[in-house]
Amino acid sequence: MAKETITGFVQATVDKAMRTYVPPEARIATFDQDGTLWVEQPMYTQVLYCLDRVPAVVKQLPELRERQPFKTVLSGDREAIARLPLHEIEEVLLATMTGMTVEQFTAEAKAWLQTAKHPRWDRPYTELTYQPMQEVLRYLRANGYKTYIVTGGGQDFVRVYAEQVYGIPPEQVVGTAVGTTYGYDKGGSPTLIKDPKLLLNDNNAGKPEGIHLMIGRRPYVSFGNSTGDRQMLEYTWAGDGPRMSMLVLHDDAKREYAYGPAQGLADTKVGTFTQALYDEARSKGWVVVSMKDDWNRIFAFESVGSRALQ
Amino acid sequence: MAKETITGFVQATVDKAMRTYVPPEARIATFDQDGTLWVEQPMYTQVLYCLDRVPAVVKQLPELRERQPFKTVLSGDREAIARLPLHEIEEVLLATMTGMTVEQFTAEAKAWLQTAKHPRWDRPYTELTYQPMQEVLRYLRANGYKTYIVTGGGQDFVRVYAEQVYGIPPEQVVGTAVGTTYGYDKGGSPTLIKDPKLLLNDNNAGKPEGIHLMIGRRPYVSFGNSTGDRQMLEYTWAGDGPRMSMLVLHDDAKREYAYGPAQGLADTKVGTFTQALYDEARSKGWVVVSMKDDWNRIFAFESVGSRALQ
Repeated sequence: MAKETITGFVQATVDKAMRTYVPPEARIATFDQDGTLWVEQPMYTQVLYCLDRVPAVVKQLPELRERQPFKTVLSGDREAIARLPLHEIEEVLLATMTGMTVEQFTAEAKAWLQTAKHPRWDRPYTELTYQPMQEVLRYLRANGYKTYIVTGGGQDFVRVYAEQVYGIPPEQVVGTAVGTTYGYDKGGSPTLIKDPKLLLNDNNAGKPEGIHLMIGRRPYVSFGNSTGDRQMLEYTWAGDGPRMSMLVLHDDAKREYAYGPAQGLADTKVGTFTQALYDEARSKGWVVVSMKDDWNRIFAFESVGSRALQ
Repeated sequence: MAKETITGFVQATVDKAMRTYVPPEARIATFDQDGTLWVEQPMYTQVLYCLDRVPAVVKQLPELRERQPFKTVLSGDREAIARLPLHEIEEVLLATMTGMTVEQFTAEAKAWLQTAKHPRWDRPYTELTYQPMQEVLRYLRANGYKTYIVTGGGQDFVRVYAEQVYGIPPEQVVGTAVGTTYGYDKGGSPTLIKDPKLLLNDNNAGKPEGIHLMIGRRPYVSFGNSTGDRQMLEYTWAGDGPRMSMLVLHDDAKREYAYGPAQGLADTKVGTFTQALYDEARSKGWVVVSMKDDWNRIFAFESVGSRALQ
């Protein structure tokens, strides 16, 4: 059903004979990343990256060793780390993602992505993208849509791999962003140093705000999977003419994860999809994609039909 | 000479057989707007727009009528207005460019651009773009370059006309930007209201910072015309491989304006091109384009060779 909705929508927007035609330059499609394009459980990939970077940061700044939350992170106590409050996690994110040149940051993140593996599948995180969503991205681009990632994750982090993994270039990644400061290194060459100053918190209301800042047009198509995407879907949906807002529901514990708490699924702090969001989607006509029912295959590395064989 | 430099550079970056080849996705070219793509004298177009908007803002907020700098602007005393200090001009910009939805702002700016005319040529400001620069934009795009405006002017203001005037879509306009706040109107529809809170001051060091924020790649080509562009040109030039940084020198009082103060031209508060910048350009090998000597025609509405006939 989701597939036919997408192809029907796209055909209606590219057919010049139809009143629903959308000129190519206006064809903007925005996608949340974590939980929409790739796996976000049991923890956002970027948070794992930042936790792994703590020892290197403490080596540079030894005074952090005995300070919280760094002390807990260094202890390696997974349960204690999982209990860290959001503002302490944010402190780790800022400490590990700022203070270096943008080139240094890119090199560090790239090196980590090449070696880090997801504990459940024992594969690089970049292989854990959803095959049906990769097909949606390609299908939209083949029909003249410009595809953007609009993520609560760090803009610079996602830019490191988005082109290779999704075919989405850095300039089409909108994410949570800190400022940079232009200066010169000892040799007199220009540098941009990442500042611990938040410019854009690209979650919730920050998503349409970020879309306006970075794109300047309202999307015709938006995909999300959690309450953090609600405003982006609303903003897309409220535009004139044809619009499509879609949500991915993680209801497949066997092949991926099952969490909500919409539809009685388990509650989670990572990628919450509330019943209120589910009801808003249903009442407005946004399609809710069921991973269990709508997706024949979840990952590219699965053989087609593997589910039927299990 | 400038023309041959540009064509030589571009050919060297698109020829796969050359070591200077640049893959298509990395071909980013950034252009300052005021004084580089269109006329900025005797005053930036956007500042004139904001001054013209003051009566409408005062109608909404009558308490501003007796307050400075609004009182001076309403007086219509051109000399007093010209003497307003920068921070008071900025107060006018914020008051006239924020507090409305992004759609209202776009509609107001569009209406103004359709009627306002430059006093010297008695033509819409959007006709006062430099024909040779339009050719450079088209030539770069024809060779796979993505062309961006990187302007100290308001990002939302330039986006109103950039696609029609330069063929540059809104998402390729980087400019001085305020934040927006997502909310709902009385009917429950989502709105984005422009805030009086500066997110990015896209001048000087703010230009490479804005390029990183909005594009995330270092340009291969940059054009500017004033000290406000210096850091963007340096940042471009300092990249690996082939890079091109260029400056437009306004040295043609007869056909346009002559100001610097580089090369002994008149000093100005609008688009200052200092001798230090001129010397940096010469020492680094950045081409300085002379409007007088290098440009056969300045505006599209001039007949070719009109200079020879005068």
